[in-house]
Amino acid sequence: MRITDLRVHSIAIADPPLRSSYGLHAPYALRTIIELESDEGVIGITETYGGEAQVKQIEALRAQIIGANPYRLTGFLSPMVDGQGGGDARSQTYHVPGENPLDATTRTFAAIEVACLDLIGKTVGMPVCDLLGGRVRDEVPFSAYPFYKHAGGGGEGKDARVDEYGEALTPEALVKQVKQMVAQYGFSSIKFKAGVLEPDIEIETVKQLYRALGPQVPLRMDPNSAWTVETSVSVGRALAMELDRGGYLEDPTAGLENMAEVRRRLLAEGIKTPLASNVAVTSFADIPSSVKMDAVQIILCDHHYWGGMRQVQQLARLAKTFGLGLSMHSNSHLGVSLMAMAHVAAATPHLTYACDTHYPWQSAQDEIVRGGRIPIKNGCVKIPEKPGLGVELDYDQLARGRERYAKCPYRKRDDELEMNKHVDPTWKRVLPRW
Amino acid sequence: MRITDLRVHSIAIADPPLRSSYGLHAPYALRTIIELESDEGVIGITETYGGEAQVKQIEALRAQIIGANPYRLTGFLSPMVDGQGGGDARSQTYHVPGENPLDATTRTFAAIEVACLDLIGKTVGMPVCDLLGGRVRDEVPFSAYPFYKHAGGGGEGKDARVDEYGEALTPEALVKQVKQMVAQYGFSSIKFKAGVLEPDIEIETVKQLYRALGPQVPLRMDPNSAWTVETSVSVGRALAMELDRGGYLEDPTAGLENMAEVRRRLLAEGIKTPLASNVAVTSFADIPSSVKMDAVQIILCDHHYWGGMRQVQQLARLAKTFGLGLSMHSNSHLGVSLMAMAHVAAATPHLTYACDTHYPWQSAQDEIVRGGRIPIKNGCVKIPEKPGLGVELDYDQLARGRERYAKCPYRKRDDELEMNKHVDPTWKRVLPRW
Repeated sequence: MRITDLRVHSIAIADPPLRSSYGLHAPYALRTIIELESDEGVIGITETYGGEAQVKQIEALRAQIIGANPYRLTGFLSPMVDGQGGGDARSQTYHVPGENPLDATTRTFAAIEVACLDLIGKTVGMPVCDLLGGRVRDEVPFSAYPFYKHAGGGGEGKDARVDEYGEALTPEALVKQVKQMVAQYGFSSIKFKAGVLEPDIEIETVKQLYRALGPQVPLRMDPNSAWTVETSVSVGRALAMELDRGGYLEDPTAGLENMAEVRRRLLAEGIKTPLASNVAVTSFADIPSSVKMDAVQIILCDHHYWGGMRQVQQLARLAKTFGLGLSMHSNSHLGVSLMAMAHVAAATPHLTYACDTHYPWQSAQDEIVRGGRIPIKNGCVKIPEKPGLGVELDYDQLARGRERYAKCPYRKRDDELEMNKHVDPTWKRVLPRW
Repeated sequence: MRITDLRVHSIAIADPPLRSSYGLHAPYALRTIIELESDEGVIGITETYGGEAQVKQIEALRAQIIGANPYRLTGFLSPMVDGQGGGDARSQTYHVPGENPLDATTRTFAAIEVACLDLIGKTVGMPVCDLLGGRVRDEVPFSAYPFYKHAGGGGEGKDARVDEYGEALTPEALVKQVKQMVAQYGFSSIKFKAGVLEPDIEIETVKQLYRALGPQVPLRMDPNSAWTVETSVSVGRALAMELDRGGYLEDPTAGLENMAEVRRRLLAEGIKTPLASNVAVTSFADIPSSVKMDAVQIILCDHHYWGGMRQVQQLARLAKTFGLGLSMHSNSHLGVSLMAMAHVAAATPHLTYACDTHYPWQSAQDEIVRGGRIPIKNGCVKIPEKPGLGVELDYDQLARGRERYAKCPYRKRDDELEMNKHVDPTWKRVLPRW
């Protein structure tokens, strides 16, 4: 089997005005859809970060991809990930995911690996998770992912989407958003994007969530490094009960040393809330220091930038070995990414928390998967009895995504710039802010 | 695809009277050959430890194996390996490999995983290494594995084998053995099994090897925990030059604490010879303490007891992440195991030393691979352009191996008992001996 064609599609999808410590989501999120076609006419697909830089990185490998055997291509390209461990650490503190130059090669490798696995699976008639050692679960739990947001459903002009959830800039509105999301998808854990409003308001938001949902629903809070050590400790203290029931505090502050200090000080007060990270620990090279300092107790993996599905499995073994938890990070994405996340999660025994997903923030109008959006039921994505990732492209929908990309002005993600355009022309990302 | 038959063959193969700190190799080594046949008539094979206990463990899974899809069986059985990391450490200090009750489940899982991969590879026409993310090398380097030995080529009666190498119980004889092995196979690194004679004689043996082979040939020395910390340090000191040119000192003493003390004391004298282990570190659960104490700098993996090929890949990532070297341990084996070792090594980027192999100690008369022994050229095994492991069974030879097993009295490995029978009726394995 040989790969005879590589097709790279830049698309834009409507994205609501979600807020985080990075700033504001633009009206469109950018994604890249890749097709690998084999000499047997089978097509493997993948979804990854969008924009010009990502496309350029994939196109740079065209000569190596065309003519390659998809079983062997990942071996040839393995130096793209094998630098991991000896190389530099890759903190994302100052980069939104997908825009960190230090993980450009692992991001690109991951996209190709997933497309190869989908192509192989569709050729031999097996789901991707079963090419990776075999599934250990058939249903993958995901977490609700509420954000503070401005009014608006994303998109512009005729592509403006219905604002399903409405504005949410108060604790009460956030709770309403969560209830709505839980009612629709059945999520049984909540990851709340903080780092946006004053810490006291965010503490109050978590307390209201806890009261509204009850102690059986794990709560996670992620301010994306917005706080000082002092603030992190005081939030951890204020929410000791709410966050330590199967939840966690994610990246409260920037840098491994600060994370370790927060951990030490919380433990000294008897507060065991674990600290999670997809900012301080984003590569294998970050792990030895983190373990030594006990800076991070839960790693949030993401096959999209960790170098693919097998790297996530290797990370999971490492996490289990060192007594670390593992969950999964997400970005704005469509159904191909959701299925890829579900497949790797299905084939990863040591996945100790429900995965994050932005999927509820996207719209059926923008979905490029044939048959429409992937169902999330009882908070879970079920691995279908279909080969590969279990999804195929809807080429009409893909064409619409390409048109939106062609028309919109965005070519990379820049949440600070969006903040300046839509909310506050003087806003800068300041860390720590509080 | 479904597995429709499981066939388990106990065989005995002639094994020369090799010495180690465990005692003496019996005239026969025991191996188990497993066949999985699919409903398409394709046969996947594997080779693992021999004897009654191993067979019983595989037979206990018969109901789960028959009817299973080989892509998914390893996922169903993953709890057999997934205990790793949270469970007990699994020192082999007091067990010869294959007889450690603490790794019975990972050994059994590994055998089944390899057979499934061979079955899948032979079904889809791809080599096993390319099912594991793709080869990163086409040729896998192995190391010469000289032993002190008594006269005899192994086997008994009509199965007695020619004593290709002769007795070797002096430094001079050991050097002669190595030269002969290097001439025949082209090995470019040497792993010398020590822990048998007085340390001064073994030091002299290494010095003579160094003089005979030159500084470009890495030398490794493995006394299997036979020494005190004091002796380990003094041997490390005496051979500082000889062992630190790409070689290592393997398991000089028993236990992580002692290994760490040897390391500390050698470093304090400016001696950087790394310590390797397949005794103090034999599972993921052993690694955190070892890393913390800097007890072991090179892990000697072995897919046969580490839980299979994917576990070795995960171990390699972990080793790379923590700055540890990785090589591969071996036991007396035939061509199926050699090919399995070569395939996993081919698909493991972070393999930093040539692999061990006992293959030169076995005879063409006992090989069960169709077409005879696997070639080792320039010290390397080449991955053939054939599906699966690249080898198939010679059923006449397999039948002869089964006959030898039926006739011989051995049902487990017991090197101490053999010492008592053939060399010294009062010999006990005493650690440390020197």
